[in-house]
Amino acid sequence: MKLESKLSKVSNRIKSSIIRELLKDASLPGIISFGGGVPDPKTFPREKLAEISSEIINKEYAMTLQYGTTEGDPLLKKEYMKLMEKYYGVDWLHEDNMVFTVGSQQALYLIGMTFLDEQSWMSASKPIYLGAASAFIQRGPNFINVPLTEDGMDLDYLEKNLEELKQKGEIENFKFAYVISNFHNPAGVSMSLDKRRKLIQLAEKYDFYIVEDDPYGALRFEGDPIPSIYSMAPERTVLLNTFSKVLSPGLRIGAVMGPKDVIRRITMVKQAADLCSSPLTHRLAARYMEKYDLVEEIQPTIKLYAKKKDWMMEALEETFSDIEGIEWVNPEGGLFTWLTLPEGIDTMDMFPLAKENKVLYIPGEAFYIGEPERNKMRMSFCLPPKEDIFEGIKRLRKTIETYCEEKGIELKIKTKK
Amino acid sequence: MKLESKLSKVSNRIKSSIIRELLKDASLPGIISFGGGVPDPKTFPREKLAEISSEIINKEYAMTLQYGTTEGDPLLKKEYMKLMEKYYGVDWLHEDNMVFTVGSQQALYLIGMTFLDEQSWMSASKPIYLGAASAFIQRGPNFINVPLTEDGMDLDYLEKNLEELKQKGEIENFKFAYVISNFHNPAGVSMSLDKRRKLIQLAEKYDFYIVEDDPYGALRFEGDPIPSIYSMAPERTVLLNTFSKVLSPGLRIGAVMGPKDVIRRITMVKQAADLCSSPLTHRLAARYMEKYDLVEEIQPTIKLYAKKKDWMMEALEETFSDIEGIEWVNPEGGLFTWLTLPEGIDTMDMFPLAKENKVLYIPGEAFYIGEPERNKMRMSFCLPPKEDIFEGIKRLRKTIETYCEEKGIELKIKTKK
Repeated sequence: MKLESKLSKVSNRIKSSIIRELLKDASLPGIISFGGGVPDPKTFPREKLAEISSEIINKEYAMTLQYGTTEGDPLLKKEYMKLMEKYYGVDWLHEDNMVFTVGSQQALYLIGMTFLDEQSWMSASKPIYLGAASAFIQRGPNFINVPLTEDGMDLDYLEKNLEELKQKGEIENFKFAYVISNFHNPAGVSMSLDKRRKLIQLAEKYDFYIVEDDPYGALRFEGDPIPSIYSMAPERTVLLNTFSKVLSPGLRIGAVMGPKDVIRRITMVKQAADLCSSPLTHRLAARYMEKYDLVEEIQPTIKLYAKKKDWMMEALEETFSDIEGIEWVNPEGGLFTWLTLPEGIDTMDMFPLAKENKVLYIPGEAFYIGEPERNKMRMSFCLPPKEDIFEGIKRLRKTIETYCEEKGIELKIKTKK
Repeated sequence: MKLESKLSKVSNRIKSSIIRELLKDASLPGIISFGGGVPDPKTFPREKLAEISSEIINKEYAMTLQYGTTEGDPLLKKEYMKLMEKYYGVDWLHEDNMVFTVGSQQALYLIGMTFLDEQSWMSASKPIYLGAASAFIQRGPNFINVPLTEDGMDLDYLEKNLEELKQKGEIENFKFAYVISNFHNPAGVSMSLDKRRKLIQLAEKYDFYIVEDDPYGALRFEGDPIPSIYSMAPERTVLLNTFSKVLSPGLRIGAVMGPKDVIRRITMVKQAADLCSSPLTHRLAARYMEKYDLVEEIQPTIKLYAKKKDWMMEALEETFSDIEGIEWVNPEGGLFTWLTLPEGIDTMDMFPLAKENKVLYIPGEAFYIGEPERNKMRMSFCLPPKEDIFEGIKRLRKTIETYCEEKGIELKIKTKK
């Protein structure tokens, strides 16, 4: 039978992930991949988790192997509240302020379901995190795509657009601003304290929610931590954290914090979506947090990523500083840097050549709603070892040179001072 | 701020689960609950799972603690295909015919997302499984609610309604028939082989899919297994199985099988919904299936449930056979029986009284889209021990008597033969 004639509108709207297609060959021998944003498996505390898992299945089987509640393990909530208080000064959390999701991806999806219709408006940065885009696009809302600068979104641009919506009488349909506050994926930048405050003012003025996605905040290499938007405006912010970058992505646990009424609605949507998450993975994380300090335990990993980031900056500097029009972000944390290549280079078009040269990245166009900036690329430094980082960047130089030659694009070499 | 003004249509459509509310007190001391349909935790193979979990975290951490693919663990697919071939004669499965979901609930939800819009039609039994109703209702489709008889849905009723849709030129909007083929939740009945064949004929005639939900099929106590609809019409059936009833609900694994193009679409929706499920729980189930025969291992549990079912039938017979107008289903497997009480008794209205008498059930009205039959109730026999089953049914009799007295409903006592 013809499936197409039976599909829903939503289903017709969904595209398969570009990244998934692009990274199919990421694990082939000889390939150096800056593509995926996945943690280094060697950083996972496997022995500790193995021991706990065996214990909680043997002794707590009536909970860990049974159905759980939709909102998640109460013990995990308790431990997470302690962490939020100890490290982030958030001491007002009640268990009704929290729900655990299947990674942050499910949180984004449920938030889309909770707030968005085809008549709705929301804002997101340009570029936008791919997973967020795919979750929100399903709902078919209208987007204000706000350009990203060094210290976060261009809030003047956002305000101008909000004001226009207000003039058109559509401002009630503006549901939320979606923000990655620290070490943006893909762009590497963080939102400054000033801009966080200004965004809260805008949210108050135009009455909308802020969805603060913060998967990487704990992975800070340098510079001072900036208070979360949530900590400054808990009554209108939904904060998304995840265990994927600080413990293990395989547990599939995202932590969502926000106003009780919002959390309740998100929980109700989750109940219809999957009834509950695995109590086994919840309790595994909870007992781990009980025994070990999550933030202390992750320090060696942060040091490792910080070194890798430095190597990548060093390699980029060594390899590309002589070419005009190549820029990259030096992130203070997280997993990504964001490269801008000279105008005319299309990183998607160049991708097959890079693959031939055995180096992978994510072409910028994966991260846009609407018209992409084609001369950008996302590079993750967290997985490859030191020598691969330097070698990979060399291969990238070769790729760019060959591509430009083939396309007749002139690479301008800087005159030495 | 006012959340209500910011909610999506979908979110406004979602009600919190009645069962969840009703069963809040299910674990209080002294309460005998026939409410939840959850397996007995003592039946979970905890020692085996504990051992495997520790092994797969220690040795396979690069897979089990990392992100996985959206469609799920390839090893679990391999093992599941073997099981389908060995026990169900389904020997044509390719890995592209399968995707694993977060329990069957996520499968139902993703199927709703994949096929249904507000213009769509689907059919479901009346009564309908609550979780399916909540997943499908989110999409706002039109329902044909097909009355359930002893041997499954009334297919004449379905055909009549399909023909009407055809006459109205709306038959292309009819997406699928949703069926629980074995030991229906809540009604306990199974669809006969004749009706399965007839349903397939209707699907061919009117060109729609069949969504065959079979969480309980493996839990057969008596009678001969009936071939699945999927095994007879794999090109237009999507089959939903789950590990929740045969291994552990806490793993949150549902297995969806169907035509490759449908599976691909469901997988794409899942990717936006949660990226991937936990590879840890997938690999845990896979290694378990590799070491042990899932169907053999579950036999003691089936024997246990069969005994409990017999006790419940015995208790019902002893306690209610003298009252006219009380009927119950004697299921050949699964977890539930379905009681019909004399007209005039409203099982939801009676619920607080039952709670006072320390016995819980699920009022029938939880299982209807549209006008419910209020004199029905679902009773699960799988959790309480023998003495509680007998005592619980006695309390139910007392509850019914008191309720009828209070409401002035006359219970007709049969004259002894």
